[in-house]
Amino acid sequence: MLETLGGISDERGALTRTFLSPAMRRANRLVGTWMREAGLAVREDTVGNLIGRLEIRPGAKTLLLGSHLDTVRHAGKYDGPVGVLLPLLALENLRRRGVRLPFNVEVIGFSEEEGVRFDTGYLGSEGYCGWLKAGTLAMKDAAGVTVGAALKDFNGGRFKPPPAAHRRGELLGYVEVHIEQGPVLEARRLAVGVVAAIAGQSRFRITWTGRAGHAGTTPMRLRRDALTGAAEFALGIEAVARRTPGLVATVGVIEVPSGAGNVIPGEAVHALDVRHASDRLRRRALVKLGRIAQTIARRRGLAVKWERTQDNSAVACSPALTARLNRSVKSVQGRTLKLVSGAGHDGVVVSSIAPVAMLFVRCRGGLSHHPDEFASPSDLGVALAVLTDFLQRMGEEK
Amino acid sequence: MLETLGGISDERGALTRTFLSPAMRRANRLVGTWMREAGLAVREDTVGNLIGRLEIRPGAKTLLLGSHLDTVRHAGKYDGPVGVLLPLLALENLRRRGVRLPFNVEVIGFSEEEGVRFDTGYLGSEGYCGWLKAGTLAMKDAAGVTVGAALKDFNGGRFKPPPAAHRRGELLGYVEVHIEQGPVLEARRLAVGVVAAIAGQSRFRITWTGRAGHAGTTPMRLRRDALTGAAEFALGIEAVARRTPGLVATVGVIEVPSGAGNVIPGEAVHALDVRHASDRLRRRALVKLGRIAQTIARRRGLAVKWERTQDNSAVACSPALTARLNRSVKSVQGRTLKLVSGAGHDGVVVSSIAPVAMLFVRCRGGLSHHPDEFASPSDLGVALAVLTDFLQRMGEEK
Repeated sequence: MLETLGGISDERGALTRTFLSPAMRRANRLVGTWMREAGLAVREDTVGNLIGRLEIRPGAKTLLLGSHLDTVRHAGKYDGPVGVLLPLLALENLRRRGVRLPFNVEVIGFSEEEGVRFDTGYLGSEGYCGWLKAGTLAMKDAAGVTVGAALKDFNGGRFKPPPAAHRRGELLGYVEVHIEQGPVLEARRLAVGVVAAIAGQSRFRITWTGRAGHAGTTPMRLRRDALTGAAEFALGIEAVARRTPGLVATVGVIEVPSGAGNVIPGEAVHALDVRHASDRLRRRALVKLGRIAQTIARRRGLAVKWERTQDNSAVACSPALTARLNRSVKSVQGRTLKLVSGAGHDGVVVSSIAPVAMLFVRCRGGLSHHPDEFASPSDLGVALAVLTDFLQRMGEEK
Repeated sequence: MLETLGGISDERGALTRTFLSPAMRRANRLVGTWMREAGLAVREDTVGNLIGRLEIRPGAKTLLLGSHLDTVRHAGKYDGPVGVLLPLLALENLRRRGVRLPFNVEVIGFSEEEGVRFDTGYLGSEGYCGWLKAGTLAMKDAAGVTVGAALKDFNGGRFKPPPAAHRRGELLGYVEVHIEQGPVLEARRLAVGVVAAIAGQSRFRITWTGRAGHAGTTPMRLRRDALTGAAEFALGIEAVARRTPGLVATVGVIEVPSGAGNVIPGEAVHALDVRHASDRLRRRALVKLGRIAQTIARRRGLAVKWERTQDNSAVACSPALTARLNRSVKSVQGRTLKLVSGAGHDGVVVSSIAPVAMLFVRCRGGLSHHPDEFASPSDLGVALAVLTDFLQRMGEEK
């Protein structure tokens, strides 16, 4: 299933599936088929989330299981899909064993988590949780299309932000299985581990403005080059992150709009992504970076503008749900391990409406967001056994 | 004429006319009309150059006049067109005065000088002079279209590089009028000046390769970030240029192909443009920059690849032709001034088939490659009077 789904891409020869793209629509159709085969009633909401529901008893509470179906550019096949497909197999395991759960289950393939097309992530889970705000709807992609316009087009001409799919009281929780995207499980020789907390994350779009000019005739000392300002800042960001334990900070994209090889850059725009498990230390680092940018701008005669595109506090997973998950991990794998997730996950947003727990699966070399991303069938088998055990016990104890 | 031509753009609200684009085709049609009104026989060659010929006597030698009709992105209206339109007005002046030149005149609007679409310039003049090489034809634009494929399409399906439009012996010279694009004439309070030499210029496309990875889960010390390597190099380039008198070096474009805000850049690609009036000092600076890039690559675990996209030696203008131009400048303006051009010009390439002279016109603030680029009507009038005087005397003395 991962191989088939991994072949559905917006690009030839590489896996890229972005928000509302043709490949995303095809992926939803395919996964929708698999959901139906697993006995779920399938619908797509107005932000493109694929939702499969096993309605066991009307009025009973619902357990959410899921992850996202979009990808970064030139992605691997595991980041996201694993958490949508394993629940389908777990439900099938239960059916084969004749286990009938006493609660409803909803398996969700979120339509957007990676923040590629609009440089803000969680559009799918924000829509599902009733969070989509006017500011987010006004954000533009590289072609100038807003989130709102893309959603209008997706819905055949009209769109308004959906309300939350559930009230908190209706939900038992949200459980997400995901590849670790880091090296810890591999180092500890474990197939799976349980997430204790998800790091907080701030993302920005930063614009440096100087003065364009002729690259051949403008002496160096008369230049106000926006790009060398941005370059100096990129190195400042790297230096702050290197000397702050646990902090990661990344400039993932940069461009000189309307630039040419023989024109001094009048403008440079880049992204900034800053994460830390401690919200306090993340905020402190951002204040430091703000000062560095100001100093560079002043010295170089540039203007610098920060636009916050995303801001998520660190999220502690639910102790009760995590304890259940730990018990199943111990039962299947012999021992368990608590991890902090440096990556953001849909659970960050879903934690606003449900208690959250996460299971991480070892991936080779800790590599992700890369075509070589890999989790072994046997590790995925362990994760499946854990999830099946978790669901079965939860059913027995309800 | 400048205002009308300046309204012909590939973009709404800004002047951008790149090689073989729809706007370039419209610009050629319009200027072709004006050429015909000035009594010239008009043709377009297979690389899109617009050529207006005043055939006075078959077998007589030919004087070339011209400049380019393409622009940078978000350009001004003067850089290029001034040197195509003033010759038409000068010929009209002569016609009104009843002056009949004893040589043929060819006015050329080169189709490409700025190097925007393919990050290599002089495609028009290289085609005109019979220089277009297989390596140039294989260069690609941002969409992956090669120069050769674009030319094939332009010519309705077939293209082979044209031979030189003239043999050297047939030509009296090439005279180009151009805005100064620098601050010297303004500082000296002169409308026009004469170019003694054009600085040599090297342009490169430089690719840094590291390893893509997840921005949230890859610790800083395990990263091989291609973009921070490129940023460090951009600052190294700036530092070398700042401490080398007369050297200008520019990174005008940069990008992270397939990048996203939450992915560590596995690749970063940028341009480099280096110029100096001394070829020896330019080459010495390039050696220094090569060492700096190697040091950065080694320390950061990156690979760095240089592709030379352009390389032009400094060009000394023809002493004989320049002396004639100086005489006309003195006669019209009272005094003259010798300048070095930091910018490259079509004359760099045309110097391979003809003696070259250049007249610079003052532009406000030395600004060019910018929508605020401006040369006053009275300064343009001085340039026109100089060009008319130059042509008339040349005719009288032939």
